[in-house]
Amino acid sequence: MKRKTLVLTVLSAGLGLVAGCGQSGSPSDASAEQDAGSTASASSGNATLQKVASARNLTPDDLVAAAMTYMPTGRHDPYLMMASGGHSGQVFVIGVPSMRLLREIAVFTPEPWQGWGFGTGTKILDEGNVKGMPPIRWGDSHHPALSETAGDYDGQVLFINDKANGRVAVIDLRDFETKQIVNNPLAINDHGGTMVTPNTEYVIEGGQYATPLGMDYAPISEYAKSYKGMVTLWKFDRAKGRIDVSKSFAMELPPYWQDLFDAGKKVSEGWIFGNSFNTELATGGVESGKPPFEAGASQRDNDYLHIINLKKAVAAYEAGEFQKIKGFPVIPLQTSISEGILFFAPEPKSPHGVDVSPGGEYMVVSGKLDPHVTIYSFEKIQQAIADQNYTPDQFGVPVLDFDAVVEAQVEVGLGPLHTQFDDKGYAYTSLFLEPAVARWTLGGPYGDKNPEDDWTLVQKIPVHYNVGHIATAEGDTVSPDGKYLVSLNKWSIDRFYPAGPLLAQNLQLIDIDNTGDNMQLLYDMPIGLGEPHYAQIIKADKLSPWEVYPEIGWDPATQAALPGAPNSGNERIERNGNQVDVYMTAVRSHYTPEHVEVNQGDHVVWHITNIERAQDATHGFALSGFNVNLSLEPGETDTFEFDADTPGTFTYYCTEFCSALHLEMAGYFLVKPQE
Amino acid sequence: MKRKTLVLTVLSAGLGLVAGCGQSGSPSDASAEQDAGSTASASSGNATLQKVASARNLTPDDLVAAAMTYMPTGRHDPYLMMASGGHSGQVFVIGVPSMRLLREIAVFTPEPWQGWGFGTGTKILDEGNVKGMPPIRWGDSHHPALSETAGDYDGQVLFINDKANGRVAVIDLRDFETKQIVNNPLAINDHGGTMVTPNTEYVIEGGQYATPLGMDYAPISEYAKSYKGMVTLWKFDRAKGRIDVSKSFAMELPPYWQDLFDAGKKVSEGWIFGNSFNTELATGGVESGKPPFEAGASQRDNDYLHIINLKKAVAAYEAGEFQKIKGFPVIPLQTSISEGILFFAPEPKSPHGVDVSPGGEYMVVSGKLDPHVTIYSFEKIQQAIADQNYTPDQFGVPVLDFDAVVEAQVEVGLGPLHTQFDDKGYAYTSLFLEPAVARWTLGGPYGDKNPEDDWTLVQKIPVHYNVGHIATAEGDTVSPDGKYLVSLNKWSIDRFYPAGPLLAQNLQLIDIDNTGDNMQLLYDMPIGLGEPHYAQIIKADKLSPWEVYPEIGWDPATQAALPGAPNSGNERIERNGNQVDVYMTAVRSHYTPEHVEVNQGDHVVWHITNIERAQDATHGFALSGFNVNLSLEPGETDTFEFDADTPGTFTYYCTEFCSALHLEMAGYFLVKPQE
Repeated sequence: MKRKTLVLTVLSAGLGLVAGCGQSGSPSDASAEQDAGSTASASSGNATLQKVASARNLTPDDLVAAAMTYMPTGRHDPYLMMASGGHSGQVFVIGVPSMRLLREIAVFTPEPWQGWGFGTGTKILDEGNVKGMPPIRWGDSHHPALSETAGDYDGQVLFINDKANGRVAVIDLRDFETKQIVNNPLAINDHGGTMVTPNTEYVIEGGQYATPLGMDYAPISEYAKSYKGMVTLWKFDRAKGRIDVSKSFAMELPPYWQDLFDAGKKVSEGWIFGNSFNTELATGGVESGKPPFEAGASQRDNDYLHIINLKKAVAAYEAGEFQKIKGFPVIPLQTSISEGILFFAPEPKSPHGVDVSPGGEYMVVSGKLDPHVTIYSFEKIQQAIADQNYTPDQFGVPVLDFDAVVEAQVEVGLGPLHTQFDDKGYAYTSLFLEPAVARWTLGGPYGDKNPEDDWTLVQKIPVHYNVGHIATAEGDTVSPDGKYLVSLNKWSIDRFYPAGPLLAQNLQLIDIDNTGDNMQLLYDMPIGLGEPHYAQIIKADKLSPWEVYPEIGWDPATQAALPGAPNSGNERIERNGNQVDVYMTAVRSHYTPEHVEVNQGDHVVWHITNIERAQDATHGFALSGFNVNLSLEPGETDTFEFDADTPGTFTYYCTEFCSALHLEMAGYFLVKPQE
Repeated sequence: MKRKTLVLTVLSAGLGLVAGCGQSGSPSDASAEQDAGSTASASSGNATLQKVASARNLTPDDLVAAAMTYMPTGRHDPYLMMASGGHSGQVFVIGVPSMRLLREIAVFTPEPWQGWGFGTGTKILDEGNVKGMPPIRWGDSHHPALSETAGDYDGQVLFINDKANGRVAVIDLRDFETKQIVNNPLAINDHGGTMVTPNTEYVIEGGQYATPLGMDYAPISEYAKSYKGMVTLWKFDRAKGRIDVSKSFAMELPPYWQDLFDAGKKVSEGWIFGNSFNTELATGGVESGKPPFEAGASQRDNDYLHIINLKKAVAAYEAGEFQKIKGFPVIPLQTSISEGILFFAPEPKSPHGVDVSPGGEYMVVSGKLDPHVTIYSFEKIQQAIADQNYTPDQFGVPVLDFDAVVEAQVEVGLGPLHTQFDDKGYAYTSLFLEPAVARWTLGGPYGDKNPEDDWTLVQKIPVHYNVGHIATAEGDTVSPDGKYLVSLNKWSIDRFYPAGPLLAQNLQLIDIDNTGDNMQLLYDMPIGLGEPHYAQIIKADKLSPWEVYPEIGWDPATQAALPGAPNSGNERIERNGNQVDVYMTAVRSHYTPEHVEVNQGDHVVWHITNIERAQDATHGFALSGFNVNLSLEPGETDTFEFDADTPGTFTYYCTEFCSALHLEMAGYFLVKPQE
């Protein structure tokens, strides 16, 4: 992957650079780094910059990229990228353009630094368990979705789905903590979540691998008859900041493997769009000499874009036109057909992404085994429906005529997956197989925003390697910002020092601020603690995070002050029968009380409040040997409970380095043996 | 915190900078960033660099710092920082100087991206459980220690302790995975681990909060009599790559709160040094009107440096001069006194760090409530012991005369904690309260390596904020590299966008390559997923990580090929009574078999091998609903088992985006209901 060095000769005089050409970017530079990495002081400007560039073999492009991404101490990143953590089960908050990991948000997986899964939050994890199955303590977080108002991010809430277990989580962006996990009783897995409608009325969760709805047993031989696809519309109650399960519903779909969804916006508001693969109804069985899924599900030239009239679906649900499966309302497929809720359109071939243009006019679909992106017109779709220009699929769903609904096709390259938009009339599509990111022009109302012809490939920039999703700044809203694109690459191979056989992913920041053939790679960010699947990039000033919790005694699980929470002066230990309630406070640099003694066999309920009001004055609380660690942010109250079965002398202490006397912030927990 | 801009006027002509003065570093720059952050292309060299610097308000110092830390795509960091994750329970591998997080190593906390705690590795976690207590699924990882040969890092193994539960873990640096967790049966917490002796013969684990050894119940009123301190010497078997518990032992110490330890090296090899606080024997009780620990443990002007003749201790252990407590050999305090194994020296006041100079001549101690570092001479200590220049403490331990053993004291500032060394005769001490890092000169054999007088403060550089440990490149070995220092700051307050009330830590990279008053801040790295406590920085080329596992069917838990592991061609499902063994392979892009059907009530043991041989061709394996996710690196075999209690239709799929047909890499798991 040779890096661009053509401009160097011309520029070296101007910058006074004497080296920097040629082999930079090769891993073998590492040894040169060890000799030269730090030979120049940072205090003497131009001559020093020259020396550093020479010693570190940096090109002029490198210096510019460094300057475009470097954050001096105290400077805040103007954008935040909310990236799913993939099978880490978490969400990552990354500053853009510095590509620094600001924090992990624990969602589906217990995480002791945040105390997630050790105190009150455990109830939220438990509410997300799959009924009848063991507790789930991880997730495969896939598609983060910021809440929207009028189709634009409003910075209030973040949703994220768990592909592995068919779940959706709600994160409050005031404290960046998970508040709710809902388990879908219909499906054991999902994929096309958690895109939101333009005012966050609904959070979309589309299925993936079909099963009988409700996951009852049915032999694989009954696939076509008993297995079903689905999409679920979770109603979001903005006042409560929670999904209202009692007002949510699902739609039965054919057992195609639904994949991604996107909500219509502006002209297409009130509709949602999804895609699917395995319209072949392949059931695998490589062990019996049958084609594996990878072959069986890739035979047809077309799969089906799903076109759903959400307003009509809601009306059908509200009119009671549903069945209940495992207690959850499901609009039957035949109802969706007969009521004109569901239409298909052919889409080439094994589609992956479906993305709606900022104004809602176009649906861009990428068939990963077809070198084109296919652009559908919402207007033409409406016309085809009005004209009844369709024929039924094998389940009776009307399939619109391809030529009647397609606006354009653009040949972008091999393995196109996902598309994002900017403010200059460009669309960007990831190309898994090349691997690269393609910039191409939209037509219609976007045609005048850039100098190139409509529906034309403009540039491809290589990425390293195997890109899945991409994210541009606010690039899936009604008003994309442009400026930056992040390529979420799945393989990194030689890009970073290989810390064992399990390699980091590579998130590459690309400058997309200039029109034409001018995309530039700025930064490689290794991410070796999860596999970000999709990300959204939001202007940081849209959020209003809390510096400390609003009141002392705050319960983050309910986002309200907890009645009876411990506070300064009311610390105590109460016994009722064999239940012991501990009411404790934490402040720099001690707990009150410092001794807690119970009897073997007691049930202990332990409440702690951090009574600090200073930002960053977090205390931890570890009860050694009891698998408990809490993170108590200023004002927070947390609670845990356990049976004191084992007699002994135990200790507790502050795990968050809070003060010069932090080590002294400790106490003794004694369990007196039974006589 | 005003940033240095004095040189700007002189330099702006040379670099062509027209802005960049003044307020950069203020969070309010964020809005300017949004307008200007990405206005310039990265392709046009000097003029572009000028434009970017102007638009982004970067000073000449900023440009140099950016150039000193920027890594062009594909360039590998020359150093790796192994940082503990604090109460995340993990270890972070960070590239230096780019300060990019290359990967997290799961140690004490289950982590699904790595599959840690979901397959075979669960046994390693379980072996670390505290006997009689619930399973521990987190840790407070504190002090990483790289294995050493002749006092220098050899890049083979990393040790890390869990303060919260008194445990030590062993990580193999060929695959960066945890191989062993040993639980200390004597103590429910620890602190001064896991420093190693110069050839990694022993891994040191010092105690923290005293309890009865073995943690039996004893009322707090019996503190002085029944509570004990301890240090444990874990024998490391380098051939096996594991701690040999059967050859490990502990020493009883007074119930002072032992804190950090360091091993002697070169001239002091064969000795170890620790410190302590709470020689007051304070027992807290603020709830009863007694002084809290923070006050009670800070009353005396001196605590005690612990000086231990390790050779004699090993001889006593090998001679059987121990008692067994909970089955673990402990050398009694009186034996250590009578055999000349243990000595104390007064150290001012509430000491935290103790660090041995590269040649082993000096022990540097920081009393966090004293503005000096105190430097002890090993030679003088030996002389004082020979002269019997000591008096006993209340437990009879000989306390050496302070004036007889001190070489120097250097006033460095407020709240000194920890000291590291470089190759130019400087020592660096973190100052928690200022907060700053102080550079000062060593004397003796180090005196000629720099221009300044011996034992003199040279410079203090502010850090942001509340620094705990610091790490210089190979700075605690016999041959420090200098070049870089990382300040592990506990508070970040205003440095980064505040993602909720729980703020990131701030790891600041400082250039220490030039002598004199020339330390320069280079980079702020937020770390919002753990609280790194200590770190070591090693030259990357000292490690030899595996690209893929050596053979197909590799078991990372034993680092050997697993007999009978699934491989291509022998995939099958075997039933024996109600146990079903699944032998499965994974390869791009399918599992074999793709259907697994069992009967309700069966016990299922599921073995999977990733038969890939290409680097980075990792596959995941999620069994939806069963709380299972594996990460299968090329060649790896993993195993999990469960009871199939709930009938139904379930799915499994690859969680690591492996290929264009990754989504098709899936299968069906059917549990047939009982008749």
